[in-house]
Amino acid sequence: MSEGNIHEKIWIDIQKIKEFSPLVHNITNYVAMELTANALLAVGASPVMSHALEEVEEMANLAHALILNIGTLSSIWVESMQIALDVAKKRKIPIVLDPAGAGATKYRTTTANGFIKAGGIGVIRGNPSEIVSLRGYKGQTKGVDSLVNPLEYQKQAMKLALNNHCVVWMSGKTNVVTDGKQVIFIHSGTPMMSKVAGLGSTASAIVGAFLAVNQNPFEAAAHAAAFIGVAGEIAGEKAKGPGFFKAVFIDTLFLIKKNELCKYLKWEAND
Amino acid sequence: MSEGNIHEKIWIDIQKIKEFSPLVHNITNYVAMELTANALLAVGASPVMSHALEEVEEMANLAHALILNIGTLSSIWVESMQIALDVAKKRKIPIVLDPAGAGATKYRTTTANGFIKAGGIGVIRGNPSEIVSLRGYKGQTKGVDSLVNPLEYQKQAMKLALNNHCVVWMSGKTNVVTDGKQVIFIHSGTPMMSKVAGLGSTASAIVGAFLAVNQNPFEAAAHAAAFIGVAGEIAGEKAKGPGFFKAVFIDTLFLIKKNELCKYLKWEAND
Amino acid sequence: MSEGNIHEKIWIDIQKIKEFSPLVHNITNYVAMELTANALLAVGASPVMSHALEEVEEMANLAHALILNIGTLSSIWVESMQIALDVAKKRKIPIVLDPAGAGATKYRTTTANGFIKAGGIGVIRGNPSEIVSLRGYKGQTKGVDSLVNPLEYQKQAMKLALNNHCVVWMSGKTNVVTDGKQVIFIHSGTPMMSKVAGLGSTASAIVGAFLAVNQNPFEAAAHAAAFIGVAGEIAGEKAKGPGFFKAVFIDTLFLIKKNELCKYLKWEAND
Repeated sequence: MSEGNIHEKIWIDIQKIKEFSPLVHNITNYVAMELTANALLAVGASPVMSHALEEVEEMANLAHALILNIGTLSSIWVESMQIALDVAKKRKIPIVLDPAGAGATKYRTTTANGFIKAGGIGVIRGNPSEIVSLRGYKGQTKGVDSLVNPLEYQKQAMKLALNNHCVVWMSGKTNVVTDGKQVIFIHSGTPMMSKVAGLGSTASAIVGAFLAVNQNPFEAAAHAAAFIGVAGEIAGEKAKGPGFFKAVFIDTLFLIKKNELCKYLKWEAND
Repeated sequence: MSEGNIHEKIWIDIQKIKEFSPLVHNITNYVAMELTANALLAVGASPVMSHALEEVEEMANLAHALILNIGTLSSIWVESMQIALDVAKKRKIPIVLDPAGAGATKYRTTTANGFIKAGGIGVIRGNPSEIVSLRGYKGQTKGVDSLVNPLEYQKQAMKLALNNHCVVWMSGKTNVVTDGKQVIFIHSGTPMMSKVAGLGSTASAIVGAFLAVNQNPFEAAAHAAAFIGVAGEIAGEKAKGPGFFKAVFIDTLFLIKKNELCKYLKWEAND
Repeated sequence: MSEGNIHEKIWIDIQKIKEFSPLVHNITNYVAMELTANALLAVGASPVMSHALEEVEEMANLAHALILNIGTLSSIWVESMQIALDVAKKRKIPIVLDPAGAGATKYRTTTANGFIKAGGIGVIRGNPSEIVSLRGYKGQTKGVDSLVNPLEYQKQAMKLALNNHCVVWMSGKTNVVTDGKQVIFIHSGTPMMSKVAGLGSTASAIVGAFLAVNQNPFEAAAHAAAFIGVAGEIAGEKAKGPGFFKAVFIDTLFLIKKNELCKYLKWEAND
């Protein structure tokens, strides 16, 4: 793909989200709920947060995308997530898994891996330490911190995607988006993004909005990563600290112009 | 009522809230909790969020108003809401119901209608699709989206109020406040309000603060709707996007001057 | 201690938090979660929110400090708090208790007093009405509002600290930090801090970050109170209302310079 072509394709997805306003069903953590809802509204999607056993099946039946985020788990929520996952798989709507905190406790790692094993996950978005804790990775015994080599991380992301027939977006200074064969690197962003609680979770929900309007999950995930990275970089230039950054970031999602996307996108395809 | 008189009466309520600082007990959804608490603090009320079965009765016994919001339900919360509702009815403190998401799932619709049937609700605040899903409305078979005619919505709001001896505030581009006989339209506001997660829920909580200082629920609800609409319109003129809008809106609730209220109020009484 | 020495010691703690990035494990209320996480990130700590019975022991085993906040309790959370408390005591990591709302309901008062009785709490941070509802205080029968004399409050804070071998930070217009024998008064701050939901809870979490890098709990609590007060006063000079205040406050925590700390610190040691 030529660069110009990529800008155009991302921009088309952004417009489609505004036109179609997909209903994104989130079962996500308490910390990220408000920011996630505001970001989805800003991009033109319709957020709903719903986790009650009594309604989760019905809500998943209305949704255009499902987001499972394990950031503040409890046993009842895991049960609700499983029900929503089953409905989403049956309806073939896109599913995003955010393995927030996987690797930190066995409960999170096991729960995330259980969802992946059940199949149907379209995109997994996490940071490097979360990604390497998931299925597909074996032989790592020295702990996450020993993975100092970014290339090693990238291999793990590719293996995770390949083994589970899904797309992986490993976020960080460089965002790696892979389906296990192809890899796209997105260098747009700012370190301040790591200073905003729930921003990673919010990014995962935005992926759901892109998946709802673009049937190619690899493209959709890469476009979402590009959009988030660009919006983050623009906001980072305007804000002095993470407090204002959050407001500017939401405004940027809402107001972004095509020429800004073109100017700030740092996209590198490994092909 | 003359226009000047209305400004004066709204302003008196706003001042009374600051003087009396009513304790507003919220059982509300996770997304709206923080914004709701901040908005109540900004207008001079004292917010408390409390839903535990172990304490909900005691908290409801301390409160000057009770807000029930079904935005993120679970069975235990419904039980707590019922207990708080019983206490509030016995104590004759004002009760506001926010049927967030009613119409979307049977669980929400049934829960909201159950509270209405139990009686004692003073004010129901919701958007049109929520309002038409509630008790009092019959014969609607083509689904919410077929109600393209705003007049039809207005009739449903009036019927809901009349059938249940309460006041209904149906929010939207035009806010309709009715006790089933009288109707007040408030045209103040901005489309950006629909881009802020939890703003509707927050409006419902603000109604509770007005009800705590004004014993006429129709007036109190209309005054709250007017205040929120005016603050929203002022904030909308200052903010470029929904991220900053949220901060400006809270500041406007806190700082509003009487001449701003007069300038931005678009109030239309149907009498 | 000379004033210059105090600025230096506070500044050293602030730098140590950035270098060490302590993992602060929060079991806190829904309203304060996001602000707490953002504030911890802003000062350079690593926040984690985790309350599930299935993982709370493992998470507490990873943490450098534990924060128990009873702002939105439920029976399962109390159970999780107890488990986390036991782990933290065994590992001798610092523990902060925020008795949010103690005194308002028996459930909160009893729960807070139960944790204090169990021992191991390093610092209790609360407002005056919360502090006087806790263990160590007897003979108060006329209710919290009768304690009009600030000196009376101070005595209660000292008694609470002395009886339970912990440090108490009673926040307010004047912050009182005491180990039962020594008292430090911090006059920095702004009334607008009381208009931001969750700011008290956030302050308690920041204490945890200071305790993780300073082994003297009396010093650590006083330094945290000084830092929060100074950041609040700076933010209060820049923000017109509580909406913007929140963003400016987070930015100030992130960006604070040593000369600002020196300029705004109003520290009074009772020795």
